[in-house]
Amino acid sequence: MSVYLQDIPLNKAQELWDTVLREAGLDGVLGSEMLALDESLIGRVLTAPVWAKLSSPHYNASAMDGYAVRSGDTLGAQPTVPVVLQCDTQARYLDTGDPLPDWTDAVIPIENVEPLDEQGQPTRDLRHPAAIRIRAAARPWQSVRPLGEDIVATELVLPAGHVLRPVDLGAIAACGHTQVQVARKPRVAVLPAGTELVPVGFPPRPGDIIEYNSLVLAAQVRQWGGEATRFPITPDDYAAIRARVLEAAATHDLVLLNAGSSAGSEDFSARIVAELGRLLVHGIAVRPGHPVILGMLKLEGRTVPIIGVPGYPVSAALTGEIFVEPLLARWLGRTVPQPPTLKARLTRKLASPAGDDDYVRVVVGKVGETWLAAPMARGAGVITSLVRADGIVIVPRGLQGYEANAEVTVRLYRPRAELEHTIFAIGSHDMTLDLITQFLAQRGRRMASANVGSLGGLIALQRGQAHLAGSHLLDPETGDYNLGYIRRYLSTVPVRVITLVGRDQGLIVRPGNPKGITSLKDLVRPEVSFVNRQRGAGTRVLLDYHLLRLKLDPAQIRGYDQEEYTHLAVAAAVAAGRADCGLGIPSAAQALGLEFIPLFKERYDLVVPQVYYESDLLAPLWTLLQEEAFRQAVAALPGYDVSVMGQVVL
Amino acid sequence: MSVYLQDIPLNKAQELWDTVLREAGLDGVLGSEMLALDESLIGRVLTAPVWAKLSSPHYNASAMDGYAVRSGDTLGAQPTVPVVLQCDTQARYLDTGDPLPDWTDAVIPIENVEPLDEQGQPTRDLRHPAAIRIRAAARPWQSVRPLGEDIVATELVLPAGHVLRPVDLGAIAACGHTQVQVARKPRVAVLPAGTELVPVGFPPRPGDIIEYNSLVLAAQVRQWGGEATRFPITPDDYAAIRARVLEAAATHDLVLLNAGSSAGSEDFSARIVAELGRLLVHGIAVRPGHPVILGMLKLEGRTVPIIGVPGYPVSAALTGEIFVEPLLARWLGRTVPQPPTLKARLTRKLASPAGDDDYVRVVVGKVGETWLAAPMARGAGVITSLVRADGIVIVPRGLQGYEANAEVTVRLYRPRAELEHTIFAIGSHDMTLDLITQFLAQRGRRMASANVGSLGGLIALQRGQAHLAGSHLLDPETGDYNLGYIRRYLSTVPVRVITLVGRDQGLIVRPGNPKGITSLKDLVRPEVSFVNRQRGAGTRVLLDYHLLRLKLDPAQIRGYDQEEYTHLAVAAAVAAGRADCGLGIPSAAQALGLEFIPLFKERYDLVVPQVYYESDLLAPLWTLLQEEAFRQAVAALPGYDVSVMGQVVL
Repeated sequence: MSVYLQDIPLNKAQELWDTVLREAGLDGVLGSEMLALDESLIGRVLTAPVWAKLSSPHYNASAMDGYAVRSGDTLGAQPTVPVVLQCDTQARYLDTGDPLPDWTDAVIPIENVEPLDEQGQPTRDLRHPAAIRIRAAARPWQSVRPLGEDIVATELVLPAGHVLRPVDLGAIAACGHTQVQVARKPRVAVLPAGTELVPVGFPPRPGDIIEYNSLVLAAQVRQWGGEATRFPITPDDYAAIRARVLEAAATHDLVLLNAGSSAGSEDFSARIVAELGRLLVHGIAVRPGHPVILGMLKLEGRTVPIIGVPGYPVSAALTGEIFVEPLLARWLGRTVPQPPTLKARLTRKLASPAGDDDYVRVVVGKVGETWLAAPMARGAGVITSLVRADGIVIVPRGLQGYEANAEVTVRLYRPRAELEHTIFAIGSHDMTLDLITQFLAQRGRRMASANVGSLGGLIALQRGQAHLAGSHLLDPETGDYNLGYIRRYLSTVPVRVITLVGRDQGLIVRPGNPKGITSLKDLVRPEVSFVNRQRGAGTRVLLDYHLLRLKLDPAQIRGYDQEEYTHLAVAAAVAAGRADCGLGIPSAAQALGLEFIPLFKERYDLVVPQVYYESDLLAPLWTLLQEEAFRQAVAALPGYDVSVMGQVVL
Repeated sequence: MSVYLQDIPLNKAQELWDTVLREAGLDGVLGSEMLALDESLIGRVLTAPVWAKLSSPHYNASAMDGYAVRSGDTLGAQPTVPVVLQCDTQARYLDTGDPLPDWTDAVIPIENVEPLDEQGQPTRDLRHPAAIRIRAAARPWQSVRPLGEDIVATELVLPAGHVLRPVDLGAIAACGHTQVQVARKPRVAVLPAGTELVPVGFPPRPGDIIEYNSLVLAAQVRQWGGEATRFPITPDDYAAIRARVLEAAATHDLVLLNAGSSAGSEDFSARIVAELGRLLVHGIAVRPGHPVILGMLKLEGRTVPIIGVPGYPVSAALTGEIFVEPLLARWLGRTVPQPPTLKARLTRKLASPAGDDDYVRVVVGKVGETWLAAPMARGAGVITSLVRADGIVIVPRGLQGYEANAEVTVRLYRPRAELEHTIFAIGSHDMTLDLITQFLAQRGRRMASANVGSLGGLIALQRGQAHLAGSHLLDPETGDYNLGYIRRYLSTVPVRVITLVGRDQGLIVRPGNPKGITSLKDLVRPEVSFVNRQRGAGTRVLLDYHLLRLKLDPAQIRGYDQEEYTHLAVAAAVAAGRADCGLGIPSAAQALGLEFIPLFKERYDLVVPQVYYESDLLAPLWTLLQEEAFRQAVAALPGYDVSVMGQVVL
């Protein structure tokens, strides 16, 4: 399937890259700069160790507000045998931090001192008495912060390679430095190339691709400590791209050439790299991301690494993580940060090509005591999968995937603590779930949802794979929703059933309804094409129930086998002309400017295991269902009945 | 002991603070700004949800380089029954990403197509043939990225409160946005006040304190998403500080008034807050950090929160974490990031005042399968303890501490993965350890060391609390080092013993040796004062051995009970005039410009359990001991013999 000539394994590509970088002298810190201590230094990397120049404190300092004394003068003082010390000759008042006079060796805190006036009578002047009376002996060096208590001159304060944090700046200043030697920021050129690309802000026509990879790559470079320059889009013109690469290489340490996603466009990049220097790798057996190019540009007296970044956005971002982040870390003299990992169980079987290192995005949640990883959409073009991903599971080369429930290691994109507070919803799709996600986010609670259809949701609950499932399964025998299915599929898990909304179901058609569709009977007309929901979806159950009732044969419906997983995907199929109609909800039709022919009313419930129903995790959800602002937001969408919201069905 | 009037519990202070902020309308997002999509947006916080304006892809796109066809035209094609399609009318060449013509519904990848010329003969022109021959039927919509595959218009892309990452910027651009609504950065004024303060870069005299708290606080503010203004130092003058507070409050959202560390200086701050608004809290039962002030300044038409930050650097930094970070998070509309935590066992008993929430800095390491937390120096002035800390253990109010080996929860300052690769060294102190730490850091290996003396190190190894221990324990019976003690204290743990260095021990005295000290016999002279090492230190064992041999009575040595934990601390005591001499190593004397009288030569070994000796974790250390650059760095310090470095004693 691939036209890339050498799909070499990732580890081989990395080895070759490392070797060539080392030969070019580009495997270490690029350069250093001395910068004055300033808050902007956080995140910068030390390229020389910081040894203390000054001790801290740099003198013997009083640790309290009190009186410096000679401990010898206080010997014998007891509660009933006070000792009186004359101020100036035997005791001197010090604020915290004041230096001890040479002739003193201890500090008596002010609250343990009785001030006396010149007549030896008690006075209220704690700071300027004539003498003080004490009723306990002072130990030598009590209440003193000795010179060097914190840092002694010549001690190591911070090693080279350390990434500066706020407290580090304080320690560096405390030990007598005014500036610090840090790695200079590597300069990275980001070059988008492709005639199909249009800049952000230009209304795209069909075939136009909004150019945002350079934005993502530049932001990655910035996040990893480099400085990025985004170049304008270069059209697919060999000479123009070649000129741009030369221009960028002249003033940057690394060139990221982000070519279009077609094989032809990739070949351009490879030829230019080969012409201007050395093409090392063209195609790596990593998924997504195959058409990565690695090369070295040879300029007058300089060698500049170039990475050909694939055009698909997920491939582009992962190429950044796999190749750009480690290179920048090396150039900054820091270790590559290891992402936190977590062991989790796969919610479903994961198939993977044995020839590739396969980077699979997953949603992660903790249900009960079990961490779960749900694999997401695999397409290299689905940037939202990276946005929604909680982490990555790497299926290594040589494996054909993992079975459902297998334990896998997830590299986390989000802090574990955040994932521990994530509501994991699996089941039927409804537009209201987006609203719930948004409203809960504002209350500090995250919800991650996966659309597997109503029945899939109930099965996930039975397997302990979710906190709740949206469901609208019509029971043909009773005409009621969900309860029959729960008895059948969730027999061993005590659950509660809470109604989220009542909603309309009907046919989604193009504006103006050009095929004149009015009921399910039109689906069997030969000139009408249909887009269906997947098996197990509540909407599919509804369709099949009514087809049976109307004695319509699914085999006569063109597109009955064309399945989508969400209402919006069905609407998108109609909008794109892939079908004339589909069964779904009116909010999905409205979202894409389509028409809606209402046919049925149904109930959409949340099915929740009793144990999570009562948990702190879900408590904000139950509060939300009672909130007027949320109900109004749902009611503003077409076809929803919020009067039943929050009703406890079971 | 405290002169702060109301040491209220931390949770009460926080409740009061929250209430007052809510009443002032300062408990939510301060304001928003619309900013163009740009890589500088990473780390900014969305104040409105991002809903998709465009679908992505916004048209049906080819997922491959290949030919768009009507799937109906391909029916019946099989390996032995090819079908020929005429270009332009039945098939059209598309690059990946090109839009499908209206009349097509599938793409056949280019590698599955046989191009034909006008005579129906095979041609090599893959892109402009007259016709194509195929040998398999196309499924409808195969190799097509349908409209909305990634995002469908109106879907939720990102909720409000989300902190932007590189991939998010791509998704926002992909769904048709050119700008984004984010929280404006809260403006924070940092006001250092105190006559004793001098700016970074001014050579400090005794009593001067280098003002770096404002640097740490400003860096914290920046790290947490705010914008800090550092004001110049204001001397301890009521009117001047008051004027500065008013000036700062006029243009900032929050004022951090960092007063001196003395109680008098704190009172100034409290009076100013009370005069200019409302003093809410003066003194909180949290350690370190007691004298925190919380208040609200009432200006014309505005209320500006003010926090009086304690002068001690550890207190100041922790006040930032406890009060400033959550406030900034709230003003940015994000949840307060939860620090990662870890369960670990305390290496020693931890005493804590029952009345305070006690923030104890710890070093964390994983020894075998056990996570350990070693409590560090407690002083509020010891900023290096924050720099070296791997995390914080909070001993809650009401508890008087924890027993040794108790399981505690550590809030981590460093990623867990970094801590898993940390060599945990406990034992004797030697200046070479700093060099090892620096050299290993450059090789990506961290070493954390705690100084508990040689014997303490061996006991830690016996308890499984360290990977290695530095030791130089002279056996009086054999004259050899360490082996006898290992037999006695490490009987059940198989260990290896590797010599680090040979080194001189002797008396550290002030420049010019004013007391004319030449041998241990001078220690019993009444006018000579001494500073000792703690019991269990190898240097203490050495001293006691020779005192016994010379029949000198420790009771006659002034300062024999004055104990320090490191050579540098001994040298610092001599330099500061707290003692006339101490026993130690020449590099410590040199570090502080002191004189050294050599008396003995000794061997300093690394004692390592067999299991860690062979581990990957320690491998870089053994390589290091053979490296010329490292040996030269050690040899450059006075009094070290590197010829024995790396010798395996056991």
